[in-house]
Amino acid sequence: MNGLSVYSNIVEKGLNSYELPKNPSNLYDPLRYFLTLGGKRMRPILTLMGCELFGQSPEKALPSSLAVELFHNFSLIHDDIMDEAPLRRGNETVHTKWNSNIAILSGDVLLVYAYAELAKQDSSIVQELLKLFNKTAIEVCEGQQYDMDFEKRDDVSIEEYIEMIRLKTSVLLGCALEMGAIVAGANDKNKELIYEFGQHVGIAFQIQDDILDLYANPEKFGKQVGGDIISNKKTMLLLEAFKLANKEQHQQLTSLLSETNFDKKIAEAKSLFNELKVKEKCQQIMNEHYEIAKNALNQIDVSADKKAPLFALAAYLMEREI
Amino acid sequence: MNGLSVYSNIVEKGLNSYELPKNPSNLYDPLRYFLTLGGKRMRPILTLMGCELFGQSPEKALPSSLAVELFHNFSLIHDDIMDEAPLRRGNETVHTKWNSNIAILSGDVLLVYAYAELAKQDSSIVQELLKLFNKTAIEVCEGQQYDMDFEKRDDVSIEEYIEMIRLKTSVLLGCALEMGAIVAGANDKNKELIYEFGQHVGIAFQIQDDILDLYANPEKFGKQVGGDIISNKKTMLLLEAFKLANKEQHQQLTSLLSETNFDKKIAEAKSLFNELKVKEKCQQIMNEHYEIAKNALNQIDVSADKKAPLFALAAYLMEREI
Repeated sequence: MNGLSVYSNIVEKGLNSYELPKNPSNLYDPLRYFLTLGGKRMRPILTLMGCELFGQSPEKALPSSLAVELFHNFSLIHDDIMDEAPLRRGNETVHTKWNSNIAILSGDVLLVYAYAELAKQDSSIVQELLKLFNKTAIEVCEGQQYDMDFEKRDDVSIEEYIEMIRLKTSVLLGCALEMGAIVAGANDKNKELIYEFGQHVGIAFQIQDDILDLYANPEKFGKQVGGDIISNKKTMLLLEAFKLANKEQHQQLTSLLSETNFDKKIAEAKSLFNELKVKEKCQQIMNEHYEIAKNALNQIDVSADKKAPLFALAAYLMEREI
Repeated sequence: MNGLSVYSNIVEKGLNSYELPKNPSNLYDPLRYFLTLGGKRMRPILTLMGCELFGQSPEKALPSSLAVELFHNFSLIHDDIMDEAPLRRGNETVHTKWNSNIAILSGDVLLVYAYAELAKQDSSIVQELLKLFNKTAIEVCEGQQYDMDFEKRDDVSIEEYIEMIRLKTSVLLGCALEMGAIVAGANDKNKELIYEFGQHVGIAFQIQDDILDLYANPEKFGKQVGGDIISNKKTMLLLEAFKLANKEQHQQLTSLLSETNFDKKIAEAKSLFNELKVKEKCQQIMNEHYEIAKNALNQIDVSADKKAPLFALAAYLMEREI
């Protein structure tokens, strides 16, 4: 999406001029490394857009947008330890390139640096920003814990799953946008609505992620199609499949979990999912959240031309090829 | 020290009425467990005393004092993982009782809860509190990294060692006191002085800790005398010994590091330390910091009777039997 470059340039400029101390190098070198691995910078962009939506220059919200991005990177560094992930964006994770202790401590200090960015905003709004940021950070940690808990449970409901992805990933999008709105001085009703928009776009996006894992065009998809199936990840597709399955299909699904021929596993899972119309069911839930998001944005009390970039962004995020 | 109970009661009452959510239980049960393991609660007490010093009721600084205590507990939970410590205050550490992933994540969320306490103070001072707290938290992480780095180095100087303990433990005492002073509306000069007082009491206390490890009265000391010698910990005693040793003594010390008869190791180290007057040298440095601390407190622009409890506390901390 072309219109995003103006925001991403502000974010990249902010990150590039961001100077971490040189020493202790075992604390800061991992952060310098990790922060340059890239990523879409979607969250800090949302903060800038949230500020502009309410009539202020996006640069005014730069500290808040960096706070959100640093927090996101903190959570990735620690999640990668917990998930024992060797790679992040095609590069070694911090705990792999250095070690777990260094990944714990550099993650910790990165979280504090996120708060340090937040403290740079005008003193009259720091408390409000801090409260929203804390509430969100707590929810993200809770979401990560539920995600780990769910790996060991066989009775996760769709509702629990949606609540988990809401906490783990979606509230940070709502928070990112609302922080921009706070900087711009939006009123309470508008702040609530922009948060709702972000949160439900986030849920829809995450469901789409689950669908794409199996149904993406392999030529356009950056990673292996069916990776979640191979690793028995409890995605919404799998949870819906178990929910919709009759007794026989349930047994088929259960035995598929231990299938070691991955091509066969993916093909048979897909065939069963198609039979059960799992994809359509997930798309329906995804669209419900997309509609709630658009509805919230519609209700915000600013002119339509100001909302256009956020409608365009949401459509861009939702139009990935399924 | 009798006079402390009025403050520690406020802290314990605050901690007891502190309600963490029930779920996810794997996130919050470890925190409920760890926060009741006790400890002297010295840091939150300092915050309350810092507030009272400048004429305000100590209760006014309760959120800040809890922020300091929660932060301290966060750092202990994560340090225990990094140090592979099985016990804390005689009880299992979080990563031992649960596992490392749970200790990482529950530590993370505890750090956020510390910030949530801070956000409860009056909005007019939240930014100032946040900046001091962030600066301190960053320094504590840096100190922990230096501590880990020093374990692998053979050329740590006394100056580097003091800087490490300043960062790892002492700045938090200065911060605790200054946060109380901020809540009470102290002026800049007084805030600087109370911070200096806390920081140098902290350095002196930490040096005393090193000395006590070898020179404490075994009947009054809670743990094994000479534990640091057994584990070759680079304490100020050992660093001073290496610094003061001639070539022959240096070789003696080096070969002692691999001695496996612990009684012999402790006895010979002590004999060598006595020869080099290591204890006296460390006490001298300790007293220098204690003097700097008292001098700072003396200069604070409030009446002597208000300062008396802090002078008494410092003396109490320094009078442990050496």
